[in-house]
Amino acid sequence: MAPPFFAIVSGVGSGTGASIARRFAQSYAVVLLSRKPSSYESIVSDIKAAGGTAIGITADAADPAAVDAAFAQIEKELPGSKLAAAVYNGGAGMARKPFLELKLSDLDLSLDTAANGLFYFAQKSLPLLLAAVDSSPHPPSLLVTGATASLRGSAFFSTFAAGKFAQRAITQSLAREFGPKGVHVALAVIDGGIDTPWGKDRVVNNGVEDGKINPDAIADSYWHLHTQHRSSFTQELDIRPFVEKF
Amino acid sequence: MAPPFFAIVSGVGSGTGASIARRFAQSYAVVLLSRKPSSYESIVSDIKAAGGTAIGITADAADPAAVDAAFAQIEKELPGSKLAAAVYNGGAGMARKPFLELKLSDLDLSLDTAANGLFYFAQKSLPLLLAAVDSSPHPPSLLVTGATASLRGSAFFSTFAAGKFAQRAITQSLAREFGPKGVHVALAVIDGGIDTPWGKDRVVNNGVEDGKINPDAIADSYWHLHTQHRSSFTQELDIRPFVEKF
Amino acid sequence: MAPPFFAIVSGVGSGTGASIARRFAQSYAVVLLSRKPSSYESIVSDIKAAGGTAIGITADAADPAAVDAAFAQIEKELPGSKLAAAVYNGGAGMARKPFLELKLSDLDLSLDTAANGLFYFAQKSLPLLLAAVDSSPHPPSLLVTGATASLRGSAFFSTFAAGKFAQRAITQSLAREFGPKGVHVALAVIDGGIDTPWGKDRVVNNGVEDGKINPDAIADSYWHLHTQHRSSFTQELDIRPFVEKF
Amino acid sequence: MAPPFFAIVSGVGSGTGASIARRFAQSYAVVLLSRKPSSYESIVSDIKAAGGTAIGITADAADPAAVDAAFAQIEKELPGSKLAAAVYNGGAGMARKPFLELKLSDLDLSLDTAANGLFYFAQKSLPLLLAAVDSSPHPPSLLVTGATASLRGSAFFSTFAAGKFAQRAITQSLAREFGPKGVHVALAVIDGGIDTPWGKDRVVNNGVEDGKINPDAIADSYWHLHTQHRSSFTQELDIRPFVEKF
Repeated sequence: MAPPFFAIVSGVGSGTGASIARRFAQSYAVVLLSRKPSSYESIVSDIKAAGGTAIGITADAADPAAVDAAFAQIEKELPGSKLAAAVYNGGAGMARKPFLELKLSDLDLSLDTAANGLFYFAQKSLPLLLAAVDSSPHPPSLLVTGATASLRGSAFFSTFAAGKFAQRAITQSLAREFGPKGVHVALAVIDGGIDTPWGKDRVVNNGVEDGKINPDAIADSYWHLHTQHRSSFTQELDIRPFVEKF
Repeated sequence: MAPPFFAIVSGVGSGTGASIARRFAQSYAVVLLSRKPSSYESIVSDIKAAGGTAIGITADAADPAAVDAAFAQIEKELPGSKLAAAVYNGGAGMARKPFLELKLSDLDLSLDTAANGLFYFAQKSLPLLLAAVDSSPHPPSLLVTGATASLRGSAFFSTFAAGKFAQRAITQSLAREFGPKGVHVALAVIDGGIDTPWGKDRVVNNGVEDGKINPDAIADSYWHLHTQHRSSFTQELDIRPFVEKF
Repeated sequence: MAPPFFAIVSGVGSGTGASIARRFAQSYAVVLLSRKPSSYESIVSDIKAAGGTAIGITADAADPAAVDAAFAQIEKELPGSKLAAAVYNGGAGMARKPFLELKLSDLDLSLDTAANGLFYFAQKSLPLLLAAVDSSPHPPSLLVTGATASLRGSAFFSTFAAGKFAQRAITQSLAREFGPKGVHVALAVIDGGIDTPWGKDRVVNNGVEDGKINPDAIADSYWHLHTQHRSSFTQELDIRPFVEKF
Repeated sequence: MAPPFFAIVSGVGSGTGASIARRFAQSYAVVLLSRKPSSYESIVSDIKAAGGTAIGITADAADPAAVDAAFAQIEKELPGSKLAAAVYNGGAGMARKPFLELKLSDLDLSLDTAANGLFYFAQKSLPLLLAAVDSSPHPPSLLVTGATASLRGSAFFSTFAAGKFAQRAITQSLAREFGPKGVHVALAVIDGGIDTPWGKDRVVNNGVEDGKINPDAIADSYWHLHTQHRSSFTQELDIRPFVEKF
C-alpha cells in the first residue's frame, strides 16, 4: 500500500535537493527527479535503508514531456497517495560572462530551467496539492529555491538573473493565487555558496568554518516552511552564511 | 543556581510576545519586559507552573533608564546565566490619521518605540549575546518584530511606517555588523492581523477561520530563526495569513 | 548625408513608442521598429513633415533574424550615423488568467518579447552605443519600458510578470556592466494605464481627467533620462498617474 | 509685488541645495533655509545678481519653532505668493561607527534631521502646496533628498540609515495621500559622493572625471520631477555616477 502522503523534489544532485529529500523522507514518501540516475541513486538507497520510501525518476525539468511521464509514473507507483509538498530546486545556466559574449542560447537555458521548468512543474503539482488541502498534515506546499540573482541583476550575470527573477515572479503570483486556496507557495533565496562536493573549490568563504551553507540547514528551513500554520505563511526568506557580505 | 541560558522578550502583552516567551521557555529561562505587570504576570505564572523559569520586569522599552535597571536586575536574578536570545517585540504608535491631523508627538511615539527602543535594547543585549557565542546551543539571536509598515509607507500611516522603516534599517545594519561575529539578527515582517484578545474586533479577516495570525505560529518561526545553523541565517522573512491580500 | 546621430525605438504602436519617437526626433534621426507597417507609417510621415528624419522598419523584436535584418538596413540607410539612444518598448503577452488555464506558450510569448527580445536588441545596440560614447551629445542610452509587473507578481499575472521581472534583471546587469563604459541603461516602470486609443476602454481611471498616463509625458521622462549627465545616472524610475493606487 | 510663485529649499549648503535653489530660481522666487547665513548668502547674492528673487532664512530644520518663524517670515516677505515647490534636503548625522560605540544621541540627531525635520517641513508646506494646485504652472511638488542609506542599512551606518529609512517611509505615505489631491511627492535616492567643496577629499571616485555627482545635474532631475505632468508622476528615482558600484 502506498504511503498516504508524498513529496516531490525536482532537481536533486549532491547538495540542496538531496538534503531536502532526506529531510522530507522522515515524514513522507519522496520522489526524486533528476536529469541523471547517478544524481539520485545513492539518496534513494539511503532513504530506503533508513526505512523510508523513495522513488528516483530520470527527467529533465525543462522538458514537459519528461515531466508528464514522471507524474504518470508517480501516479502508478504511489496509487492513492497525496502530494503534501513539491519542491522546485532546478538550477542551471549560471553563466558568468560579459554580456556581449553571451548567446541567446545562454538566456534560453536559464529561462528554460528557472522559469519554464517551474511553470510546468507547478502546473502538474498544483492540482495535486489542492487535492491534499483537506487531508494533509501540514498545508500542502510548493517550495522554490532562489538565489542571490533572484533579487539582483549583477554585472555579467544577465542571463542567470533573468531566469531567477522570472522564477520569483511566478512564485509571487502563485502565492497570491493559491494561498487563499490553502496551498503554501514560498521562495527561499539562497545567498551564498553551498557546501557541496561540486562547490568545494568554486565558492567563496572556503577558508572559514561554516562559511558555506550547510545543505541540511537549508532543508531544515524548507521543512519549517512546510510545517507553518496556514495563518502564518512565509512567502520569502533569505538564507546566507553568517560571514557572507550582503 | 541560575539556568545556564536565558532569553529576554521585550514587549510582552496578550499576543506575540507572550507566545514567544512561552516557546523559548521550553529551552531557556525567560525574562519578560513589559510596561505593565498585568501584561506578564499570568504568563510568568504559566511558565513556572510548567516547570520553567520566568522573570517579569516592568519597564518601558522607550525609557533607557528603565531598560538599564531591567538589565541590572536580570544580572542579579540570573547570575552567571548567558543570553541566548533577545527578542524585541516593541510596538506602539500605530496612528492611522490624515497627515495634517498628526502631531510631532505621534511621530516621536512611533520612533521612540520602534527605533530608539530597539537601539537601546540592542546596545544592552549585543554585548551579552556576543559573550554567549562560544557556548550557546544555537547562535545567539536578536530577533525583531516588524510589520507591513516596515516595507511600505501607506497613506495615513506616515508616523507608524517611519518607526518601522527605521527599525528595519537598524536590524539590517546589525545583521551585517554582528553576523560575522556569530550573532544572528533577523526581522520578522508580520503582515496581517494577529489573533489576540486585543485584535478581536479590530483586524481584518475576522470571518475566516485562521484568517488572523496565530501568535503561537509566529513563535514557532522565531524559534526556527533562533535555531538556524550559522551557515544558514535568515535575515528577513514575512508572515501572513493564507487569505491575506498582499 | 545621414544625420550624425540617430535613435532606435523598438515597439512602436499608438502609444508610448510613438511619443518617444516623436520626442527623440526633435534631436536625432529616428528608426521605428514595429511588427506592422501600419504601426509606424503615420508617425514616420509626421516626423518627416516636421522636417525630421525617420525610417520605419517592419520587424518582430522577438525574431533575431528580423532584428539582424533591421540593423543591416539601418547601417545602409544611415551610413556613418551613430547610435545615441536605443529604446526597447516591447510588450506582449499580458494574459490575465488563472494559472491552471495558462499554457507554456503564454509564458513563452511573454519571455520572448520582454526578455529574449530585449537581450537581442541590446546585443545589437550596445556595440553601436559604445562606439558613440566619445562623440554623442548625451551619454548613449539604452532605455527600457517596464510595468507594474516588473516589480510585483500579482495573482493571475504569472506569465506577464515572469517576462517583466526577467527584463528588469537584464536591465540591472547591463547598467552595472555598461555604466562604467559610459552607456546609460535605465528602466522606466510604467505603473498605470496609458492614454492611447488601444487603452481607451481597457484601463482604469477612465473617468478622471489625467487619470491615464499621457504618453508624451512618458517621452519627456525618457528624454530626461537620456540627457542626464554621466555623473548622475538614474537606473530606475516609476511613472504613474497622480490618482493611481500603489 | 511678490512674484506669483515661489520655491523653498530647506538645507542649503555648498552642494545639492545650492544647485537646486539656483535651478528653481530660473522660474520662481526662491527661499533658502539653512542653519548658518554663510551657507546661503552667496547663493542669494548670485540669484539676485542674475535678476531673480531670493530670500535667505536662518533656521534649523530640526527645530519646529525656527521652522514656524521661517514660514511666518516667508508669508510676510512674499505676500500673496504661492508655493510651487518645497525641497527637503536636510541631512546630518552620517556617523560611520561600530554600533556599540554609538550613542542614543547619534540616533536622535539622524532621526531629528531626516524624519522629524521632514515631518514638520511637510506639515508647514503641504497646506501651501495644496492651495497652489489649481494655479501652479506645474503640479506643486514636495521633493526629498535621500541617500544610499534610504534603501540599505549597511554595517556601521545604523543611525544614519534609521533616519533615511524613516524619511523614505514618510515620503511614500505622503505621495499616496497627497498625490490624488494633485501634489507631487518624490524621493531622489542619491547613491554616490557629490562633487562639492565639502566632499573634495571625502568621497570615493575622486580620481575619475565625473566620478562624483555634479550637483547641478541633481538639480536638473529635481526640476524634471517638478515639471512632470500629473498623469505621470515619478515617486522615486536613484541618481549615481556612471562608475559607481551598486
